[in-house]
Amino acid sequence: MEVLPKFISIIAFFYIFQFILFVNSTNITNKIIIITPTYKRITRYPDIIRLANTLQHLSEIHWIIIEDGHKKSSGVERILNNTNIPFTYIASKTPSGIPKRGWWQRDKALDLLISSKSKFIKPNQKGIVYFADDDNSYDLRLFNNYIRNVKKIGVWAVAFSSSPIEAPIVKNGKVVGFQSYYAPNRKFAMDMASFAISLDLFISKPNVRFTMDPSKYSQSPEPILLTGLGIEREDLEPFGYNSKIKEVFVYHTKTKNPIPSFSKRKNHTNFGFDIEFP
Amino acid sequence: MEVLPKFISIIAFFYIFQFILFVNSTNITNKIIIITPTYKRITRYPDIIRLANTLQHLSEIHWIIIEDGHKKSSGVERILNNTNIPFTYIASKTPSGIPKRGWWQRDKALDLLISSKSKFIKPNQKGIVYFADDDNSYDLRLFNNYIRNVKKIGVWAVAFSSSPIEAPIVKNGKVVGFQSYYAPNRKFAMDMASFAISLDLFISKPNVRFTMDPSKYSQSPEPILLTGLGIEREDLEPFGYNSKIKEVFVYHTKTKNPIPSFSKRKNHTNFGFDIEFP
Repeated sequence: MEVLPKFISIIAFFYIFQFILFVNSTNITNKIIIITPTYKRITRYPDIIRLANTLQHLSEIHWIIIEDGHKKSSGVERILNNTNIPFTYIASKTPSGIPKRGWWQRDKALDLLISSKSKFIKPNQKGIVYFADDDNSYDLRLFNNYIRNVKKIGVWAVAFSSSPIEAPIVKNGKVVGFQSYYAPNRKFAMDMASFAISLDLFISKPNVRFTMDPSKYSQSPEPILLTGLGIEREDLEPFGYNSKIKEVFVYHTKTKNPIPSFSKRKNHTNFGFDIEFP
Repeated sequence: MEVLPKFISIIAFFYIFQFILFVNSTNITNKIIIITPTYKRITRYPDIIRLANTLQHLSEIHWIIIEDGHKKSSGVERILNNTNIPFTYIASKTPSGIPKRGWWQRDKALDLLISSKSKFIKPNQKGIVYFADDDNSYDLRLFNNYIRNVKKIGVWAVAFSSSPIEAPIVKNGKVVGFQSYYAPNRKFAMDMASFAISLDLFISKPNVRFTMDPSKYSQSPEPILLTGLGIEREDLEPFGYNSKIKEVFVYHTKTKNPIPSFSKRKNHTNFGFDIEFP
């Protein structure tokens, strides 16, 4: 008569434990994987400092930075080490013949993600991939309210791309077109900063890359990726359409060359300070 | 025989209490008062967002933002309200005849500070004033390692001012000159971003302002302020000269106009999104 209740309570505890595990695995915060191609230029240190200051507010992120060069910048590495951001910084110079627009570096990041997912994502955790240039400006809500909640592919307005604002046109919760000065009727009139994609989708199409088809080297990178992944317009989940005031959370900014006469030929002195010359 | 020990212990507790109060008052963290003049432009929202992302990491600061305009920008106010930064945002349009370079707005901030110090600083707390433009780039260590420790006036290197680097030349811990492409022999070859000044000094010279002398309207603002406050070169406390690698913690960056063809004459649409047009 003593054995049966003990057995029942063991069974009960087992199911309670299973339930706790289940709740934890469904409540686990999505991880945002931020991919940033970068290259040496006079304004790069301040751009990386500002982006690091922004990303340092976020939890559950991993920042992959890929240098277009034969070796990493010790200054950039020092800036990154000074933060609390989990990051991976690697160097991979664009091979000759491939467009030097960050395509190769984004591809290297995808290689890394697909080949070693478990280094970036906890078991049961969902990953979302976002391509974030180092000179753009990001409201923290872009990450926490938009990217974090992407299921397959999220889309939103971005400022200062080919128009003051480029934004999806949304009807009944679906993207039916794009507001843009430049070719608004394209299938995806979208800037790299205006979408984020589930890591699972990349893993399900493990060979999709920006540089995989030389016949597309004259095109924009965004449609290469989106069509490669088999995304259709009806897949797009629009964000930012439920608020009274429509705010912009990402700006495609560029930092002015502070002294346009700078060139490789001139002998500039840094007076002993560590700054990057072009 | 019982009363005396009790009396002694009360006295002892009193002195311990006084000692704790003393230690607390001398250990109180300095407050950094950040003064930022601002004005409406297409790139202002992202600039303010990035600066807010940076300042949000800091404790014991107060951010005074002064709009060069008749009224405040509701968008800027919304960005500020979205942060946890203690701030004061006011509008004061530059009167005609006064240089439109943020001088009037910085003066209004000094008026406010001098007339109501107790609103910004706790009793026994020391304040340090720093003029921070909204488009510059700031390493967090500028605030926590440099500005926070200023006694009278601290100085440091700033990048992208009139040279790739403008920096004090330091000998035996004293500033003996400046490294700069442009007129290095000036008494103060310094950018607004390269120094911070004790609030006490402003309060001891309560009438010193950028706009007080119309005969100086063609000059640079920095020497107007520094000579007005009676600062001599030997007063300057240099920061950043003890580390092995000399890093730059502040960059005088500018954000590129994303679409230079923008002008007041053109009718641009914001597609319902809140962005500022020129």
